[in-house]
Amino acid sequence: MIRPIYWEAGRVVMIDQKLLPDREEYLTFSDYHDVVAAINDLTVRGAPAVGIAAAMGIALGTSVLPAESMDDLRVRFYRICDEFARTRPTAVNLFWAIDRMKRCFETGAGSSIMSLKKALVDEACHVLEEDIAANRRIGEIGSAFIADGDSILTHCNAGALATGGHGTALGIIRTARDEGKKVHVFIDETRPVLQGARLTAWEMMREKIPATLITDNMAGWAMKQGKVNMVIVGADRIAANGDTANKIGTYSLAVLAEEHGIPFYVAAPRSSIDRSIPDGSAIPVEERNGTEVTVWRGIPVAPAGVAVYNPAFDITPGELITTIITEAGTAHPPYEDAIGRLFEG
Amino acid sequence: MIRPIYWEAGRVVMIDQKLLPDREEYLTFSDYHDVVAAINDLTVRGAPAVGIAAAMGIALGTSVLPAESMDDLRVRFYRICDEFARTRPTAVNLFWAIDRMKRCFETGAGSSIMSLKKALVDEACHVLEEDIAANRRIGEIGSAFIADGDSILTHCNAGALATGGHGTALGIIRTARDEGKKVHVFIDETRPVLQGARLTAWEMMREKIPATLITDNMAGWAMKQGKVNMVIVGADRIAANGDTANKIGTYSLAVLAEEHGIPFYVAAPRSSIDRSIPDGSAIPVEERNGTEVTVWRGIPVAPAGVAVYNPAFDITPGELITTIITEAGTAHPPYEDAIGRLFEG
Repeated sequence: MIRPIYWEAGRVVMIDQKLLPDREEYLTFSDYHDVVAAINDLTVRGAPAVGIAAAMGIALGTSVLPAESMDDLRVRFYRICDEFARTRPTAVNLFWAIDRMKRCFETGAGSSIMSLKKALVDEACHVLEEDIAANRRIGEIGSAFIADGDSILTHCNAGALATGGHGTALGIIRTARDEGKKVHVFIDETRPVLQGARLTAWEMMREKIPATLITDNMAGWAMKQGKVNMVIVGADRIAANGDTANKIGTYSLAVLAEEHGIPFYVAAPRSSIDRSIPDGSAIPVEERNGTEVTVWRGIPVAPAGVAVYNPAFDITPGELITTIITEAGTAHPPYEDAIGRLFEG
Repeated sequence: MIRPIYWEAGRVVMIDQKLLPDREEYLTFSDYHDVVAAINDLTVRGAPAVGIAAAMGIALGTSVLPAESMDDLRVRFYRICDEFARTRPTAVNLFWAIDRMKRCFETGAGSSIMSLKKALVDEACHVLEEDIAANRRIGEIGSAFIADGDSILTHCNAGALATGGHGTALGIIRTARDEGKKVHVFIDETRPVLQGARLTAWEMMREKIPATLITDNMAGWAMKQGKVNMVIVGADRIAANGDTANKIGTYSLAVLAEEHGIPFYVAAPRSSIDRSIPDGSAIPVEERNGTEVTVWRGIPVAPAGVAVYNPAFDITPGELITTIITEAGTAHPPYEDAIGRLFEG
């Protein structure tokens, strides 16, 4: 099993996703600032994985704080939380994980500093373990939507690498394969950072799941030719009405899927759902540096000085999403009530 | 003015489009085999430019043939034509230009070998000159569709570089700007070969036309946000019913434009229209080597051995095209009659 991020001997370990698929290297962090940097520079990416990284980074940073008093610790702890909150704005899992660490802090604030520090590490490890368990359940629930012989298009990487392990969209595909279904995956390369070409292709080849790489602009033509049965993607933030922020290009895929009568599934843990936001218009969309578009590994692919628009995400209206698949079950349109029910009982 | 291909002192000269935008280098060919190779390896690309290159390559190859008899010359001439016909299957301008050279040959076959060779060179130069004139006329006609302040999305490069000069889609934008209209261009980078990022961006910057580069998968989101007023693209082959083969990704753009109520224009000379084909299903779509997708200038961007689907073109149904703009006027749906009228009078 691919383990993109874990806690080991008081440190945070993560695979360097920037180097994949060329090299499989693991980095060990003992300074939380390096975890902040790893989130910013996409060493770790994927909404659930970023949440886990933040939880572990907060636990790491707090674990080495000089402990003079609980009040002093609290001030420093909240400062660390703020640093993580400033990394990436779109995926809600980051803020969910930070809130969870804050609740853990306040719950444990009555005990000793040493046991509070340990509780924070335990909580971060729970965030990881629960994410893996959620993904396995998403896989079981989602596999019911996949029939033998299906051809599934996916975008970006909603795989093991984007999560604690197993993956959301790719987790469903893994589970379907493990249940004996023959599937074929079309992988959008996912410009500009090529998470599909680099990461999803790597995961599929590693597990010998048949897959074909395409450029993003080929997806519509593949659909038109009947090569694709369904689309499954992950999510960075799902609003109360089902509007879903995900990697740039997802919205276009959803429009194309609707045009071709192809079901469009979003697979995500409940930690990706933000019920405080009524619709997608309130989701902040991160814009990243234009050099992600114009330069590839130091080699320019466009004239120097060209203007670039580089939104890292887009927002797909809930009405274009056939089903949202979570570890607590599925939601269908209209989503306002259906999403609420995922949090009941 | 950008002159991507021309005839000079018995040789074919062309800008090496593979090197743009890094270097502006011109290649001079005295052997027609090198022109065949230049078409195959995308040194020259763009449907009208490929037609011009074939015409000039045929004139070049024939000009140096040993001339023992007219019958002997004819056999060798047709062999050269066949070599050019085997280069790239989708753009009809190639076959149109070859047919035109064959007609020129047969018309001149009653004269001397020397004057026939000269007639072929003259004909190839006419193909170039007529293309530039057609593009200027397309620009004048098409500019009527552009208002001051418009924001225009284009895909691939249907510019000066894709033609004899001025360009089709970009020719309209050039003319509109020359008429004093303020326009802004969104440039799809156009994976896998990045004709948008490399060539269209280079043309726009060279002429100081305001432009913003995006990845192909951002086009839908840009439309959704109201950043785009219209789409203008070129064409590689237009069937009798308006179905249009163009660079891969064009079809997706047309679906997205329709979804957002944005007009979708195709700009092309009549040499791109193939009335012998009733609809797009008869247009052969070239598939190119997967390394165009997986390797960028020698650097792999995907795991070794991954399967790739790499169609170089797709086919947009005529019903998604608002207007086809040619040098002989415009055509609107339904196209069966409208396209026929472009060839009358």
